[in-house]
Amino acid sequence: MGGDEAPEQIVKGAVLTANDPEREFDIMLCGPQKVVEEELKKNGYSGDAITVVDAPDLVAMDESPTKVIKEKQKSGLVTCVALQKQGLAQASVSAGNSGAMMASCLMILGRAANISRPAIACAVPTAKRQTILLDCGANVDEKPSTLVDFALCGSIYAEAVMGYKNPTVGLVNMGEEEKKGTEVLQETHKLLKQAPLNFIGNIEGRDLIKGSADVAVAPGYAGNVILKLMEGFYELAHEVFGEVHTEKSKEFNRLWDYRNHGGGLLLGLNGVGIVTHGRADSIAIRHSLFTAYKFAIAGVPAKLQAKLSAIKESTGN
Amino acid sequence: MGGDEAPEQIVKGAVLTANDPEREFDIMLCGPQKVVEEELKKNGYSGDAITVVDAPDLVAMDESPTKVIKEKQKSGLVTCVALQKQGLAQASVSAGNSGAMMASCLMILGRAANISRPAIACAVPTAKRQTILLDCGANVDEKPSTLVDFALCGSIYAEAVMGYKNPTVGLVNMGEEEKKGTEVLQETHKLLKQAPLNFIGNIEGRDLIKGSADVAVAPGYAGNVILKLMEGFYELAHEVFGEVHTEKSKEFNRLWDYRNHGGGLLLGLNGVGIVTHGRADSIAIRHSLFTAYKFAIAGVPAKLQAKLSAIKESTGN
Repeated sequence: MGGDEAPEQIVKGAVLTANDPEREFDIMLCGPQKVVEEELKKNGYSGDAITVVDAPDLVAMDESPTKVIKEKQKSGLVTCVALQKQGLAQASVSAGNSGAMMASCLMILGRAANISRPAIACAVPTAKRQTILLDCGANVDEKPSTLVDFALCGSIYAEAVMGYKNPTVGLVNMGEEEKKGTEVLQETHKLLKQAPLNFIGNIEGRDLIKGSADVAVAPGYAGNVILKLMEGFYELAHEVFGEVHTEKSKEFNRLWDYRNHGGGLLLGLNGVGIVTHGRADSIAIRHSLFTAYKFAIAGVPAKLQAKLSAIKESTGN
Repeated sequence: MGGDEAPEQIVKGAVLTANDPEREFDIMLCGPQKVVEEELKKNGYSGDAITVVDAPDLVAMDESPTKVIKEKQKSGLVTCVALQKQGLAQASVSAGNSGAMMASCLMILGRAANISRPAIACAVPTAKRQTILLDCGANVDEKPSTLVDFALCGSIYAEAVMGYKNPTVGLVNMGEEEKKGTEVLQETHKLLKQAPLNFIGNIEGRDLIKGSADVAVAPGYAGNVILKLMEGFYELAHEVFGEVHTEKSKEFNRLWDYRNHGGGLLLGLNGVGIVTHGRADSIAIRHSLFTAYKFAIAGVPAKLQAKLSAIKESTGN
């Protein structure tokens, strides 16, 4: 029931996925049973790839995460994450209240060892290939060491899921020079130079669009603003150039349409949690489900855990 | 001699301007006399709208502002601002080291009363009309009260120069709700609600592109990242859709080509200082010169001073 388009588009997206010949996983839809079953009927679905799990509690988009955890145990998002904890699901996807989803994942799945705070990581479009941008808004007022954790997480994600070899890591800043930016960013720059990463230094907004770094690290505030600017830019380009059909424009649409991005991964958890767009339609939901599967199959949380432990041991931190 | 394209493009831009029938001002070019005169000759200019003022000291893009102020008194940017202080010029434009330009303006022209810190304000493109974005990178780690000063400055600029009536002011944040964002942004939100402004609340990256606010206030770090992302977007759109020629695409190019923006105004000084793009070509220089004239003629510094004093008196701050 999460997101602006629930339950219609969520269920429609699940049905799209269930009917996809490339699907190698099953789907559990957690929501008020009757409502969800009604939607499945509307979509003409009667297959066995989708199971409905009753979760009658509704969570508002602006509801306090703490309140949701305490009082909405039977909400879709808490139910889903709890199924994952029990080993009945391998990944959880929500288009609802992202703060509540993060809190739910943190409380139920737990934080990966050696990680100060989990981040939301998104594969964002560039002029070349996707860049892993994090944090996209799970945190505020991060310490330099937390930003370094984000860089490590993002680097492991880029390698394990995107297949980028020795991914380059850039720090989103307001100039190339080491002494640019806030105090926190200047300190982070110093730490990143010493970290076991392919750190290429500060990157500016323009470099980000050019695809100059495989992983772009930013405080949650800036990362969130960047993510949403990119969406806005795609929407504007669509409005201005929507009728253009060239090879270049098709490639642009494929990369930049946020519905193709699969949502944000909550990185630094003992499990796979994805927050997808509040405005997610059925196509976005389908992408998020396939992305969730990819993360689970790639074993991102375990790989991250193993690499982080190795790094932290070797550097004695 | 400032910027990547100096002296060629700077002088070419000055000549373009000098030959423009709409020009109502004269130009002083501050740089090494022989070099500048040589360039003027190359451009075939021998009119009397351009005077060359000898300023042989060269300032590197990464040179410390303090050092420039102390040791490069005969640089183009210091010479130019000093001419303004003497009343021989009404505005100063530099494509060079923006930190040094800011320091030079601050030291020589002085800070407006009632302003904690000057900001760089840019008229940035949106889907509708231009939005005044500030701070675009003059400051870091601002206090909430400083961000409120930026909002007041931006609002006065939008009204006096852009002609926007009762301009709307948005705070660039990571969510619409008041309790979103960093501690500084949450506190700023509270203060903005009480300020004598048409404050419309938090705006997200997407709203910014839509043109939801006439004035967008952000910390210098975020503002700078946003400004450069917008440049990157335009460059990408140009690459993908450059061959498209429709009414919509022409309007998009007019609004989004950063060479048409006129540069960033240093807002909160006793005078007009403009930092234009380090990559400014002759077209960008021409726009910056016309923009500088517009600011000077509109008497932005004096208006800002008068309104700020009135506001501060009435609110007792």
